[in-house]
Amino acid sequence: MLSRRSFQRLLAQSALSLPLGRVLGAAGQRPNLIIILADDLGYGDLGCYGHPTIRTPHLDRMAAEGVRFTQFYAAAAVCSPSRAALLAGRLPIRTGVNQVLSPWSTGGIQKQEITIAEALRPTGYATACIGKWHLGHLPQYLPTRHGFDRYFGIPYSNDMSRATAGNPQFIKQLNQHPEVPGTPLMRDEKVVETEPDQRRLTARYTEEAIRFLRDSVRSGKPFFLYLPHTFPHVPLFASERFRGKSARGLYGDVVEELDWSVGEIRRTLAELGVEKNTLVTFTSDNGPWLIKKQEGGSAGLLREGKGSTWEGGMREPFIACWPGRIPPGVVTQSFGTTMDLFPTCLKLAGVEMPRDREFDGVDLSPVLLENKPGREAFLFYYLGANLRAVRHGPWKLHLASNSPATGDGVTRYDRPPLYNLLEDPSEKYDLSDSHPDVVRDLLQLIEEHKRTLKPGPPQV
Amino acid sequence: MLSRRSFQRLLAQSALSLPLGRVLGAAGQRPNLIIILADDLGYGDLGCYGHPTIRTPHLDRMAAEGVRFTQFYAAAAVCSPSRAALLAGRLPIRTGVNQVLSPWSTGGIQKQEITIAEALRPTGYATACIGKWHLGHLPQYLPTRHGFDRYFGIPYSNDMSRATAGNPQFIKQLNQHPEVPGTPLMRDEKVVETEPDQRRLTARYTEEAIRFLRDSVRSGKPFFLYLPHTFPHVPLFASERFRGKSARGLYGDVVEELDWSVGEIRRTLAELGVEKNTLVTFTSDNGPWLIKKQEGGSAGLLREGKGSTWEGGMREPFIACWPGRIPPGVVTQSFGTTMDLFPTCLKLAGVEMPRDREFDGVDLSPVLLENKPGREAFLFYYLGANLRAVRHGPWKLHLASNSPATGDGVTRYDRPPLYNLLEDPSEKYDLSDSHPDVVRDLLQLIEEHKRTLKPGPPQV
Repeated sequence: MLSRRSFQRLLAQSALSLPLGRVLGAAGQRPNLIIILADDLGYGDLGCYGHPTIRTPHLDRMAAEGVRFTQFYAAAAVCSPSRAALLAGRLPIRTGVNQVLSPWSTGGIQKQEITIAEALRPTGYATACIGKWHLGHLPQYLPTRHGFDRYFGIPYSNDMSRATAGNPQFIKQLNQHPEVPGTPLMRDEKVVETEPDQRRLTARYTEEAIRFLRDSVRSGKPFFLYLPHTFPHVPLFASERFRGKSARGLYGDVVEELDWSVGEIRRTLAELGVEKNTLVTFTSDNGPWLIKKQEGGSAGLLREGKGSTWEGGMREPFIACWPGRIPPGVVTQSFGTTMDLFPTCLKLAGVEMPRDREFDGVDLSPVLLENKPGREAFLFYYLGANLRAVRHGPWKLHLASNSPATGDGVTRYDRPPLYNLLEDPSEKYDLSDSHPDVVRDLLQLIEEHKRTLKPGPPQV
Repeated sequence: MLSRRSFQRLLAQSALSLPLGRVLGAAGQRPNLIIILADDLGYGDLGCYGHPTIRTPHLDRMAAEGVRFTQFYAAAAVCSPSRAALLAGRLPIRTGVNQVLSPWSTGGIQKQEITIAEALRPTGYATACIGKWHLGHLPQYLPTRHGFDRYFGIPYSNDMSRATAGNPQFIKQLNQHPEVPGTPLMRDEKVVETEPDQRRLTARYTEEAIRFLRDSVRSGKPFFLYLPHTFPHVPLFASERFRGKSARGLYGDVVEELDWSVGEIRRTLAELGVEKNTLVTFTSDNGPWLIKKQEGGSAGLLREGKGSTWEGGMREPFIACWPGRIPPGVVTQSFGTTMDLFPTCLKLAGVEMPRDREFDGVDLSPVLLENKPGREAFLFYYLGANLRAVRHGPWKLHLASNSPATGDGVTRYDRPPLYNLLEDPSEKYDLSDSHPDVVRDLLQLIEEHKRTLKPGPPQV
């Protein structure tokens, strides 16, 4: 139950801007920052998160040498909104990127948003985005217009062309847009290939990333690498070396290749002698795509997956490592979200937070570097522009929910169910009847949030 | 799919005795052997198996310093049969202990069965059973009559008295047996307390175990400690020190106290200077008791729990460590069962396997000590005296199933569903239609098993 005091404090916080990060002194080397993002990887899909037949020795080792979170969230249950929120440090609804962008969408991430790269580059960071962008494919939305020196990758999902689409409804829509090209592989702002061989994508992203690391170290600049992989989004492709190697089938092959890629990145950092000055983080954009059956992942003990505001849709693995700075072998129950990466990166880079807007993330560096407990859990779960649930502390209240895996559409609750996520991570036991005061407090938080929220211009 | 060759080999094996362990030379110190068994702990209930809010640092460290299995099974989905099979190295059906024994049962483990303790004691091992026995409470069935020098504990489940029973049906039966006493705490063959304070049980078992370790080391004998904890079986009790400390609630408190106990055992081994000559193993008797809701555990991504032959009922955490002998940090997908502990212990102790009976376990020491792949998965899943499913390699075929968690009774399948457990650990996608040859092979394995099986005298 919320104490009256913490509840009032929370209301006050949500109405004001969050505190701004202090500017660090210029002394000392500024750290390199790497964010590796998987696509549709579930909470239960890594060895160190309990999967029985997917081997992820590099990520397991990264966790053993760093910190592993068990209550870390993507900011949305689907792709584009999750990515907008990660890069801008703000809820998707504030950015206007509420829906998955299509290859015929004319929207994308807005000029007024500040991405992590945009905040860091003017202060001297080399920046690169390598992989899946999915925040708009028109020139004004591309990574190179939003703070990245370089871009290499597919600008949206790997199933968004006639050659790769699996969804008949999507193909029908696609056919109304003859201008949509085959899957484009881009370098900076140019399409360099169409329908590239997807079996080679993870390896090619990895090679590009390593080239960027080498170039940056040579230039003497600190760097920010954002590496949003195309996989394990369906359709699944793995290289020759990994195909048929995992006990888990093709999905496992693909995840094991991503794990290999993480190992290559870390090996390169060590080789370049910068591992002790580099924060490496790994997470995913949303939960497993369960309707794809064996080709989709697993949320472990969590309920549901991608496209749902049950925990399986948004709670994700999060592993961070930084030898000498992050203590090894920590498993933390501290709360975190991908929106925390913006203030965390800025704090570590000694860059002041912008003061002209509301951020939903907070600086995680006390959790990472000092194993401090961090802030109390507090998250609004949106699907599209609709607020579906709220978490505060152990409690989660659902206003509405859907269940893509079972095919159940949206249920709007007259009596919102309440779960204690610490004691009941699988969201099985509704406690609203026995805790009416908690329900009331959470409904009040929601009202306050709705009253003060300024939504961004909708992009779909 | 089974290759024709491995299939023929398997049939031959199941018809004959398994190969007998060689007797090791007398040279070298014989290792100490410890089996720690939790009660109703689920596959997903430890930190290193992915639970988000139960902290198990000692077991996580034990895994990091040893080996963690992801395909290890209890021999049954309920208590007494699972324990009979573990101690005798044979399927429950062969021992006759097919059902959970009650405090009014007149049956128990049979004289003709050989327990691990009975096999080791004559060769010079000190032996102790500390905790929950549940293989018969009448004198002839007690641990001290089956190879153990010492016994301390409650001889059956902690909910089997008028003071602690939670099930009205059970209380009704109990009332027909006025001779049944309050929960007895026994030392050797004497009841030393009635209705002991269960909050103190885990700590008292741990103290007894440590006393046994000290006494054994002082005596110069190698030792075998079997430590079957009473918890996390419901009703749940934790000591003052752990109560209210876990984010997961009382269930978490109880598991965290068991984890503490493992740490104490290992700390004592180090203190006594015998950790490099001691194999420590940890597992559970069956899956989580899901009908107990928040008081029951979690099978993680596995389907169902205790009392069911879906994977959640029988697949368990298994962690083994032996500094200097078991390589550190191994996660193995090798198959194993609690029935393997008999031949493994005998092999490591240099004791020849009895030649007069059929064993279902095999020596796991090549997997443990050399990280070898071990045998192909092969298991018959019984519930009571009924064969419900078979696993061979990746495949599992269900003849019948029940779902205690959803309240669904027994379904007998006209068309047995087939699952690939490596690719589909959650048993979601029936592949029987596309793999009729596998179904046929597995049905043939079942027929052969039924034809050659000699069931033991039923004990309930």
